[in-house]
Amino acid sequence: MPNEITATLLSIGDELLIGQTINTNAGWMGAQLSLIGIRPKRVLTIGDDRQEIMEALENADTDVVLITGGLGPTKDDITKQVLCEFFGTKLIRHPHIQARIAAFFESLGREPLEVNLAQADLPEACTVVPNDRGTASGMWFERDGRVFVSMPGVPYEMKAMMTAHVLPELRRTFAPPTIVHRTILTTGLGESHLAQRIAAWEDSLAEDGIKLAYLPSPGIVKLRLSTYANNDPVGARERVGWKADQLYRLVPELIFGEGEERLEQVVGRLLKERGQSLSLAESCTGGYVSHLITSVPGSSAYYTGGVVSYANAVKMEELGIPSDMLELNGAVSQPVVERMAMGVREALRTEWSIALSGVAGPDGGTEEKPVGTVWIAVAGPSGVRSHKGFYPGTRDLVIQRSALASLNLLRRELKD
Amino acid sequence: MPNEITATLLSIGDELLIGQTINTNAGWMGAQLSLIGIRPKRVLTIGDDRQEIMEALENADTDVVLITGGLGPTKDDITKQVLCEFFGTKLIRHPHIQARIAAFFESLGREPLEVNLAQADLPEACTVVPNDRGTASGMWFERDGRVFVSMPGVPYEMKAMMTAHVLPELRRTFAPPTIVHRTILTTGLGESHLAQRIAAWEDSLAEDGIKLAYLPSPGIVKLRLSTYANNDPVGARERVGWKADQLYRLVPELIFGEGEERLEQVVGRLLKERGQSLSLAESCTGGYVSHLITSVPGSSAYYTGGVVSYANAVKMEELGIPSDMLELNGAVSQPVVERMAMGVREALRTEWSIALSGVAGPDGGTEEKPVGTVWIAVAGPSGVRSHKGFYPGTRDLVIQRSALASLNLLRRELKD
Repeated sequence: MPNEITATLLSIGDELLIGQTINTNAGWMGAQLSLIGIRPKRVLTIGDDRQEIMEALENADTDVVLITGGLGPTKDDITKQVLCEFFGTKLIRHPHIQARIAAFFESLGREPLEVNLAQADLPEACTVVPNDRGTASGMWFERDGRVFVSMPGVPYEMKAMMTAHVLPELRRTFAPPTIVHRTILTTGLGESHLAQRIAAWEDSLAEDGIKLAYLPSPGIVKLRLSTYANNDPVGARERVGWKADQLYRLVPELIFGEGEERLEQVVGRLLKERGQSLSLAESCTGGYVSHLITSVPGSSAYYTGGVVSYANAVKMEELGIPSDMLELNGAVSQPVVERMAMGVREALRTEWSIALSGVAGPDGGTEEKPVGTVWIAVAGPSGVRSHKGFYPGTRDLVIQRSALASLNLLRRELKD
Repeated sequence: MPNEITATLLSIGDELLIGQTINTNAGWMGAQLSLIGIRPKRVLTIGDDRQEIMEALENADTDVVLITGGLGPTKDDITKQVLCEFFGTKLIRHPHIQARIAAFFESLGREPLEVNLAQADLPEACTVVPNDRGTASGMWFERDGRVFVSMPGVPYEMKAMMTAHVLPELRRTFAPPTIVHRTILTTGLGESHLAQRIAAWEDSLAEDGIKLAYLPSPGIVKLRLSTYANNDPVGARERVGWKADQLYRLVPELIFGEGEERLEQVVGRLLKERGQSLSLAESCTGGYVSHLITSVPGSSAYYTGGVVSYANAVKMEELGIPSDMLELNGAVSQPVVERMAMGVREALRTEWSIALSGVAGPDGGTEEKPVGTVWIAVAGPSGVRSHKGFYPGTRDLVIQRSALASLNLLRRELKD
């Protein structure tokens, strides 16, 4: 392994500690650093407190220290003062930055207050990092071979500053080793069972210098392959690609996409490619599958609509389920869910349809059909296919996991 | 201020550092600790790395150290081993926990693997904290007057463990100063406009020793009132109650509930009390309102079902919208949305109905109807009421905010 460049992410702000604001900055920055080959080693969140900030700066033992927050114009924002103390420097007013702040307020039709103009006071020892989206400048310091960068905590200001200035400058300064990544998305098997299924393949990765990470979330396990490029990025991509191909052959039914793709986007893309349309009939998922489908911009090109048939009367009247079929089999049954799929496909005149009927809980489970039992049907041009799944857990999890399972069933039908 | 009890939150997991998972646990735990009077001083996120974990444990200088993550069955999860090393103890198998894990897998109809059963191996020196929702037990250690608790990183397992076991036990152990809280939930006005509206009331809180925090999330602003009880919890509750009553009189139309209540639960409770039913006709929200309604356990008692009329053909056929009405006014219009509400109310024979039609974006906006324009109608026993809202933002935000606005409109009709 080449020499590693490491980073500390230091998030400053009382609101982060008490959970008023979720620290999404650190995750985004960690992902960006990883992509350019710098390893985030530690994220530390502390309050707007002089002693805490000083200690954190003194104890930092990584090549890079990225600091966010505490640069606002109010009294509790003290990061700048503490940085001056730590680096033994003092604030000086930057006239061209003051002019920029004044112009910024003018563009909003407002007078800047003195506290606003004081944002042009910056430590003498730093290189100023421009803020293209706000009034708090960034600050770049170097000491003992380490780089410290202080940035505003507002995510959209910080992200612009990172992308345009900090990340390129870090690459120039440290020339970190290039890492090649590929993230393969699976659904349908939990982490430990998936690991068992692909154990031999996983064991074979080490000799090619490839690392594997399991990244699970409800209903989905992401598999991230990564390797150092070592001056041969093309070769590294080939090595990773070779192993990825093996995985595709090993568990084709579980893989639905790569990278940041979502299953509902994949399904949408497949429908679009074929110029076909989709409708939904949902019972236990109560509109969640429809919500997923329509969360994708442009989904109106292939999604016609759906029926949420929560009451049995709606199943009968809107989807044409015979009442004796409901009585005989119950709503959570193969004949009913298949009929729901065919009914909505006909009523809304689409090529494809999905139907779901199950027990989302927490009540309503029986010995025969416990909470988490969900029947799923997909109807298409060549008939209807159904599947009984069992997705135990909280109501939310039953809904999420069965929704993903239904989309994966449609994906596989579309692929066939 | 009484003597402070402080806490460190230690989040373990490579996936947090590289931004594959956002650390939502720390924010939730920080909020919970604040509520019982323990101050979260520091959040530290590190990887699954022995030396990093050891250092973090050795350097912890707070009364409480809450550790999450690294308890999974796979090889990279090493928290348990490192805890043994730090506390100078060893793992022992707990037969009753092993039996619980085996039963848990059996209930899923699966065989536990040896790595699963090994989750019953726990440090001899700890008190085991039950996990009511999974197979990784929690561990409670004490040393030098500090409490260390290790919990799984899966949010829904950790939250249940915190609520049922860890928070009550921390209260018993440290008896932190009692704080009286009341959280009042508002919707319909953004944070800065709300602050302006209630400025005089807010200024009056200080003399009663009451603090106010604004906790904004998309479409909702929570107002949290808190004060120290100082051996007089009844008096403190009365002081807070007095100010809360004033707020209710000041902005009655904006307040929909208190505490952890969600708007969809409030609406469900009102419908249940009246023994009335609801149906939905959604266009731009694509099933999201239906998903919110059905995320509440027991919602089948009042929710009959709905139609997601994404395509105009569905609006015509399923909801009886005349085609010339659509042509004349467009789908995003008052006559269409009112007719949608009346149509679904009739078809599904419910007392109440909600309909939404708008421009969710990112495409499809016009000068007259820009992205974020949403017509909402509520139909009930005494007619239909409609409202044109403007909720600019990303597609997700338009959907979320218009869904909340529609539920608040129904809530106000139900209250009248």
